[in-house]
Amino acid sequence: VSRVLVTGASGFIGARTLAPLRERGFEVHAVARAGRPQASAPDGVTWHAADLLDDDAGGALIRRVRPTHLLHLAWYAEPGAFWSAPENADWVAATVRLVGAFGAAGGLRVVLAGTCAEYDWNAGGVLTESSPPAPATFYGIAKDATRRVAEGLGSLHGATVAAGRVFFLYGPGEDPRRLVASVARGLLNGERVATSEGRQVRDFMHVQDVAGAFAALVAADTEGPVNIGSGDGVEVRRVVDLVAQAAGRPDLLDVGALEMRADEPAVLVADARRLHDEVGFRPETGLEDGIAETVDWWRSR
Amino acid sequence: VSRVLVTGASGFIGARTLAPLRERGFEVHAVARAGRPQASAPDGVTWHAADLLDDDAGGALIRRVRPTHLLHLAWYAEPGAFWSAPENADWVAATVRLVGAFGAAGGLRVVLAGTCAEYDWNAGGVLTESSPPAPATFYGIAKDATRRVAEGLGSLHGATVAAGRVFFLYGPGEDPRRLVASVARGLLNGERVATSEGRQVRDFMHVQDVAGAFAALVAADTEGPVNIGSGDGVEVRRVVDLVAQAAGRPDLLDVGALEMRADEPAVLVADARRLHDEVGFRPETGLEDGIAETVDWWRSR
Repeated sequence: VSRVLVTGASGFIGARTLAPLRERGFEVHAVARAGRPQASAPDGVTWHAADLLDDDAGGALIRRVRPTHLLHLAWYAEPGAFWSAPENADWVAATVRLVGAFGAAGGLRVVLAGTCAEYDWNAGGVLTESSPPAPATFYGIAKDATRRVAEGLGSLHGATVAAGRVFFLYGPGEDPRRLVASVARGLLNGERVATSEGRQVRDFMHVQDVAGAFAALVAADTEGPVNIGSGDGVEVRRVVDLVAQAAGRPDLLDVGALEMRADEPAVLVADARRLHDEVGFRPETGLEDGIAETVDWWRSR
Repeated sequence: VSRVLVTGASGFIGARTLAPLRERGFEVHAVARAGRPQASAPDGVTWHAADLLDDDAGGALIRRVRPTHLLHLAWYAEPGAFWSAPENADWVAATVRLVGAFGAAGGLRVVLAGTCAEYDWNAGGVLTESSPPAPATFYGIAKDATRRVAEGLGSLHGATVAAGRVFFLYGPGEDPRRLVASVARGLLNGERVATSEGRQVRDFMHVQDVAGAFAALVAADTEGPVNIGSGDGVEVRRVVDLVAQAAGRPDLLDVGALEMRADEPAVLVADARRLHDEVGFRPETGLEDGIAETVDWWRSR
């Protein structure tokens, strides 16, 4: 039997990986600091409470559960702060140890969460897995270095290692400090919402598709980095407009009231060919439908 | 006062860094698993016993000693095995946590031990710090990734970070399984010693000079990787011949009796300009004198 251990399993992405992993036939073990979350979680998942930053908590869990597959999504994710938080180093250390314990216990496949911030954002454009990493942030540096060590451990232990490089995402339950959630909540509350001109082009994917892509990557045998993005660029302004339409309050939007950040790259879009062709995954939710669903979810709060 | 904490301080290199660090005016704190070694150690050094692989042992030591400088030499170093040992991952984790704790405690400067195995050995030749890392071994991958994360932590915390990339070394007290030591011991014992043709060119430095270079790097403000090598290439055959001359038994040498390894690069020599010009360090011991001294040391055992 294929048995997957999912870390960060109560998180924004992680919680949505459990059902697709079950559908793919995995016996699913989920780990979160608090164990099984209060919110609805799919049936047939075995929950474990562990703080992976505790000395050897991850290793002990690996040796107890004996997973064949490891989907490691847990990381420091405080909005804004995560880009340059020293906590990223703690997660490098915890991840390296976790993957080492997994390999030593005979695990077969590791999937890590990488980031589009591993790429050279000065160049920007359509970002392809074969381009050399050039992270400008500590978050990107930490994710890139972690993947390098994990790939080395995989080679030593005979496990395959892949890393899903996440681009931009949104969906119900997102942290309210993030773009789509904050605009949706503001407009639904009848507040004026100021944004930049939003001319930068980004690659947005619904969180359920991001989670589905990770589940597909766990079941695949693709190695190395794999972009998890739609492959389609959209101006951030268009995303904000869709939120305003769905909220019925385009009148409250002050587009252009905020300055663009000087260091914002013009275009960051995933080359999604590896995800489509090698992993065999295509997203199911278009941007318009996904934004409408997300705004409805905030309306229902 | 400048206070340096030296890890791996009872090791082959580490033990020889303590005196030059004292001479440069540092208050020297040394850490080793067993604390102060039995063998002679210079006066005026404060010893600490700690296993840096123990959960937070390094962090606790940092918070107690409050060093301004950190010279981190401790690593898994079992001859032969270290190239592809999973223990390298444990040292990635321990090092990242140690440097994080050092930065968080207000430390000013970190010097790590890197390796010439971070370079692309397929290319080989004279290896310069600005060439992109392309490690082929897990040891090289782990050292490279560790430096990346440490540099990121340095930026976050306002500490400078350098990494001395060690090339080939020898000297009294070396592990008897390594080249110069094993040939010297064999010949001094009157045994026949088989070697390869030894046409590969390497950069050898006496361990006391390697240690002196690390001490200079601690006192300098150079950032990033710095080759610790002589800058002079020598055929391995010449090193072996010098050992045989010093031992007085060239008759026992079977040069060419062993096959060259197919993947041995022809030339691996340090570009030593950063070490010479930016760090201001030049080695004191020539190869002939250094080998003679080393063989004498083995003779006196």
